[in-house]
Amino acid sequence: MNYDIIVIGAGITGLSSAYHLKKRNPDAKILVVDKAGTYSQGNTAKSAAAFRDFFSLRENQIMAQASIAFYKNLQDKQGIDIGMKFCGYLFLFDHEKDEKFVSKYPNSRIITEDLSSIFNVNIDSETRKIMNIDSIKTAILDSNAGIIEPDLLSKYFFDQITSMGVDVRFNTHVKRLGLEPDVSLDYPGEPFNWQKSSIKYIETDREKIYGDFFILCTDVWTTALLDPVGIDSHLRPKKRMIFQVTSPGIREIINKNIFNDSGVFPFTIFPTGVYARPYPSAGAFWTSLADDINRDFSFTEHPEPEPEFYSYNIKPIFDAYFPAFQNSKITSSWAGYYSYNTIDFMPYIFNALNMVIVSGTTGGGIMKGDSIGRIVAARYKNEAYTTLYNGEKIENTYDGYYRTTKIEDMIL
Amino acid sequence: MNYDIIVIGAGITGLSSAYHLKKRNPDAKILVVDKAGTYSQGNTAKSAAAFRDFFSLRENQIMAQASIAFYKNLQDKQGIDIGMKFCGYLFLFDHEKDEKFVSKYPNSRIITEDLSSIFNVNIDSETRKIMNIDSIKTAILDSNAGIIEPDLLSKYFFDQITSMGVDVRFNTHVKRLGLEPDVSLDYPGEPFNWQKSSIKYIETDREKIYGDFFILCTDVWTTALLDPVGIDSHLRPKKRMIFQVTSPGIREIINKNIFNDSGVFPFTIFPTGVYARPYPSAGAFWTSLADDINRDFSFTEHPEPEPEFYSYNIKPIFDAYFPAFQNSKITSSWAGYYSYNTIDFMPYIFNALNMVIVSGTTGGGIMKGDSIGRIVAARYKNEAYTTLYNGEKIENTYDGYYRTTKIEDMIL
Repeated sequence: MNYDIIVIGAGITGLSSAYHLKKRNPDAKILVVDKAGTYSQGNTAKSAAAFRDFFSLRENQIMAQASIAFYKNLQDKQGIDIGMKFCGYLFLFDHEKDEKFVSKYPNSRIITEDLSSIFNVNIDSETRKIMNIDSIKTAILDSNAGIIEPDLLSKYFFDQITSMGVDVRFNTHVKRLGLEPDVSLDYPGEPFNWQKSSIKYIETDREKIYGDFFILCTDVWTTALLDPVGIDSHLRPKKRMIFQVTSPGIREIINKNIFNDSGVFPFTIFPTGVYARPYPSAGAFWTSLADDINRDFSFTEHPEPEPEFYSYNIKPIFDAYFPAFQNSKITSSWAGYYSYNTIDFMPYIFNALNMVIVSGTTGGGIMKGDSIGRIVAARYKNEAYTTLYNGEKIENTYDGYYRTTKIEDMIL
Repeated sequence: MNYDIIVIGAGITGLSSAYHLKKRNPDAKILVVDKAGTYSQGNTAKSAAAFRDFFSLRENQIMAQASIAFYKNLQDKQGIDIGMKFCGYLFLFDHEKDEKFVSKYPNSRIITEDLSSIFNVNIDSETRKIMNIDSIKTAILDSNAGIIEPDLLSKYFFDQITSMGVDVRFNTHVKRLGLEPDVSLDYPGEPFNWQKSSIKYIETDREKIYGDFFILCTDVWTTALLDPVGIDSHLRPKKRMIFQVTSPGIREIINKNIFNDSGVFPFTIFPTGVYARPYPSAGAFWTSLADDINRDFSFTEHPEPEPEFYSYNIKPIFDAYFPAFQNSKITSSWAGYYSYNTIDFMPYIFNALNMVIVSGTTGGGIMKGDSIGRIVAARYKNEAYTTLYNGEKIENTYDGYYRTTKIEDMIL
């Protein structure tokens, strides 16, 4: 058995890739493998499960906008409930962020309503000094944003691919990519540098599975597969912890209509980067923080949330800005990883050998998931650009990079 | 004792950085630390020790051209012997590389002389098929290129900085960067995300050394220092092995004037990337190969050369193209690392916190060494651009990146 395409990883990007590959190549024999017992058990399940289109880079914007439009169509027109609520993203900027960001987003909606009944917008001078935080200067609303249920979205893609005839094997852990010469001389140590070689198979904990082309949607596990063949995954893992927090005040506001009629409090981002994602069914917020400095890039298979991280890095911010968190307590917590592309913080989708690699989704794998699948399908066919769901186009240029970076050719 | 600037690493980029920093800031208290007993004992000592200005990216070209001009002035005008020989780089292109490269370098000198007395330019069909190699279609000469002695160049910079009053501590291994809040509350686990923090000291195997600003010229060891504070080094280590090879045929040609009067055979690059760097004093070539595919990114403190890598990946290329290697034998070999920037293969010099980090020199640390030192000095002063020795300018823009990549601002 030899597959035309093997997709490794059945998270949201793997499912979306298999979906768009099969739609565009109906006769292709496609296999999806995943080490878990079912789909979307990795970081898809551990994310903040939200979407927005507020990005500074055009490519990030349109990847998100097109995917959001596709998802919205699923839910509104096709009647498939994927738990989308357009509760919006509310960015609270202090003076420094106001200067840095507001001028860059001339089309963003600046909130003119008084927010002081919800937030402490003025921080006293003592707190400002000790905590290096500042009063809230501006609030910006991204309305094309909200929350989503990744398991329902994954189920849609999964049902689609299986009904189209894509094979799926769960509980199948890919250990190694089989790099072999096209013409073997049966010498030890092949492939040699002067041989033309490509990936011929994947070695799993069960068997070798042969294929002509491979799609890696393996998130932070990509590095372990690519390192041995000498290809940089262009991602760095960064631990992401989410703490589910509730309080009487949170239960009171969580279903309020703020700037929209979704019946859900907006996903709110505080000046230091701490954010509160509404989880209305539990009367709670999921709270988190992408801590850039002082958070290492180490990676373990089963990361644990650190309560003291919440106590010292997140809670003081709510104490300062968000009275609803008074007397709050953590009711649940979990940890996963961001797949950081630290170059420009866009998904890093590239061709290498007979592979397309989806890497560095940087917290955007779900909200850009449909677009990523389309990019994979276009790259599989060596097309110059990808047309997204909303008709926008993204170039697939530069030896596998779709950004503007030039690449040095003359390396010895 | 608190230094104004601490430079970590006394290889060529560290020495050049200290030199240009001290020249531009004569009153600054500057310290250079290195774990070795003297300067340039890391990959500076293990490189191919050569220079060229044949690059596809303008920034790489001018960084090399300016440094070569500076070095040439040292040797020719100031009488400081740094072992420069302008023997040239001879690129041998097969049909595929001819198509890919020759049109990109309209100013390069195409060799019209018959090379068949030196090389096998025609590969028979059997070898072409088995080895996936091709006949030589074109030869291109980079004349502003050749070999250099890094220890002599390092000695020049070292003598200069010590005479200018830069402190140097050898046998001092930096274990950790001391990231601390500017205003400490003496809580455990500081710095917290909401605190303003910066590097206050380096922790060495001897003591803590305090400084206001830090320059990391730590090559492949950079990752171990930056990872714990959550900053990507933007480099991947790739093992580089060099095999010194001699033969009667090599001894016969090594001092021949080919296309120049340097008295040294050109540094020659064969179609698969295998290269031969002349080492005339031993009647030998240093041979190597930057093997991209099938060479992992693993890193060990004391890498060893692998004789079978020479036998299977390098030697067959000489057997096919270079008759002088008949009856050749390895007389010496060693291994070190490339500090690969896998994004665009340019040196990656960036500011982060109160640091400038020199990373990803990608095999060009020596030939671009003087320019790199000037970039560091300009970045220390937050200047918008660096003026190189030859008057060319390089921008220091984009939050620490001097390339054209845009960076996503809106990461949660």
